[in-house]
Amino acid sequence: MVRIGIDIGGTGIQIGAVNQENRIIQEGSIHTHTDLPFEEQVRQIAGCVLSTVRAAGLSEDDIESVGIGIPGIASAKTGEVIKCTNMKWAHVPFRDVFRGILDKPVFIDNDANVAALAESVAGISAGTSSSVFITIGTGIGSGIILNGRIWSGAHHIGGELGHVIFDLDGVPCSCGNHGCLERYCSATALIRMAREAVSDHPESMILGSVGNDPSAIEAKTVFDAARAEDPVALSVYNRYIDCLAQAVASVVNLLDPEIIVLGGGVSKAGDFLLTPLVSRYPKYVLFNDQPLPPVRIATLGSEAGIIGAAMLS
Amino acid sequence: MVRIGIDIGGTGIQIGAVNQENRIIQEGSIHTHTDLPFEEQVRQIAGCVLSTVRAAGLSEDDIESVGIGIPGIASAKTGEVIKCTNMKWAHVPFRDVFRGILDKPVFIDNDANVAALAESVAGISAGTSSSVFITIGTGIGSGIILNGRIWSGAHHIGGELGHVIFDLDGVPCSCGNHGCLERYCSATALIRMAREAVSDHPESMILGSVGNDPSAIEAKTVFDAARAEDPVALSVYNRYIDCLAQAVASVVNLLDPEIIVLGGGVSKAGDFLLTPLVSRYPKYVLFNDQPLPPVRIATLGSEAGIIGAAMLS
Repeated sequence: MVRIGIDIGGTGIQIGAVNQENRIIQEGSIHTHTDLPFEEQVRQIAGCVLSTVRAAGLSEDDIESVGIGIPGIASAKTGEVIKCTNMKWAHVPFRDVFRGILDKPVFIDNDANVAALAESVAGISAGTSSSVFITIGTGIGSGIILNGRIWSGAHHIGGELGHVIFDLDGVPCSCGNHGCLERYCSATALIRMAREAVSDHPESMILGSVGNDPSAIEAKTVFDAARAEDPVALSVYNRYIDCLAQAVASVVNLLDPEIIVLGGGVSKAGDFLLTPLVSRYPKYVLFNDQPLPPVRIATLGSEAGIIGAAMLS
Repeated sequence: MVRIGIDIGGTGIQIGAVNQENRIIQEGSIHTHTDLPFEEQVRQIAGCVLSTVRAAGLSEDDIESVGIGIPGIASAKTGEVIKCTNMKWAHVPFRDVFRGILDKPVFIDNDANVAALAESVAGISAGTSSSVFITIGTGIGSGIILNGRIWSGAHHIGGELGHVIFDLDGVPCSCGNHGCLERYCSATALIRMAREAVSDHPESMILGSVGNDPSAIEAKTVFDAARAEDPVALSVYNRYIDCLAQAVASVVNLLDPEIIVLGGGVSKAGDFLLTPLVSRYPKYVLFNDQPLPPVRIATLGSEAGIIGAAMLS
């Protein structure tokens, strides 16, 4: 038997058949057009599920369940996708339509939530019953696991750490508000800080390493220059770590999970990110003379989306 | 049978015998000296429990359980009080010592957590399975109820909404950090904003109503002047409501409980606080086109501490 995990991403849909050891044994992918009727999109997804299972030498009967992780919000209870902007889905009965084509148990949740679940069962936080998973990429995504289950809220709109107010009246956010946490802790934030710094300090290695084109600065550009001890890069890096430390401490002050897991592009900086973060965040925790949650880098990478979706139940 | 609720406060210890309808049928109180040995303090508390029960015409045999709410942190699992500054307790085995004197099931939790539990069972949030209770007083306390149970974290240090970073590098906080949420949302914060405003606008009704003594300004002073449409007071009031709206929205973005409950001194302003808050907070919620948690004023008042402690199990 296999469980199917479906990861709806920005550019395509990844489908995996996951075995009982939580390993992906076969993958498939599909591009679907957002202008197709919803039923047709679901038919294509179900078709890819079947072809993936067959490619693994299995049949429809070997499918135990189908889980789907979406960049958006869904009701785990009704199987409705409430909102998924990049598929142009709003209040679509995904589970019902899917089961009309392929009659298996179908589960849906947010993509950061399923990644959090995957790490908490088969990744770095395996064996814990509470964790907060923070993906640091273009924005900040998060998934909360409490008592071994995803906590997405009473109205399916929780787990959005990136839009907690972090700097009152601060940097404008794409959501329309000001000072959201992701404006200070995402890769985008790090890049913004670097651009601001090099406009005052064009001599910085940051700028040199991108051919003097500030628009080419990436998170890695800053980390590399900081590793090389460029003073401007070190200053940006230190400021960014301080922001992240205060974000992690805020999660601890409010939720105090067993462990905090970092994923996403920025987490690829590994110990260069983690070591100063772990050493600095306790300063911002209220009861910091107590045992505190460890902070670790996620281990499942991009597979977390499929594996976690397959774990939904 | 009764359950005993013990509320350890700043000035004294309140003890109540609570019946099966979650009503206090008898109250007692005790002052204990922090310089007494811990065992003697517990002996005095247990003595007051017994005298309270007897005053209700009951005996020791009628006590089902004893719950205690402390301004500090405790391990519900081991019955240890980890830290309770105003009793000068640190890592004291409360449950073991108490049971050596009066052998009943003993439960301990933080005072804001037990108040949250009380409201969620017998107060304004009765019937909900998830809620966040926010006490707005000198500081900001909070209690999180998820799946009908208190969530205080894996290391008992969660539920401290007041110390989530809300304004990066902002107003210094008594905890040693800067920009903690309680520096913007507590009664103390409202009073600070009012003092700042009247130093620029000494003509404000706020100042007149306290005999031109800024140190005499209270939260109620500001609300009363705002109700009377004093422009300076209205401006402070609006700013404060905006801060509170962003705090409530942050809780929703992260936790999305079924309901948010406000308690503490500031909540006595009632609809004058609640009406603008409820109308403004959705602006700061990411998925604000979805159903959102209602915000309500707590109904159990100061009894929540005793009732909630008695509910612990």
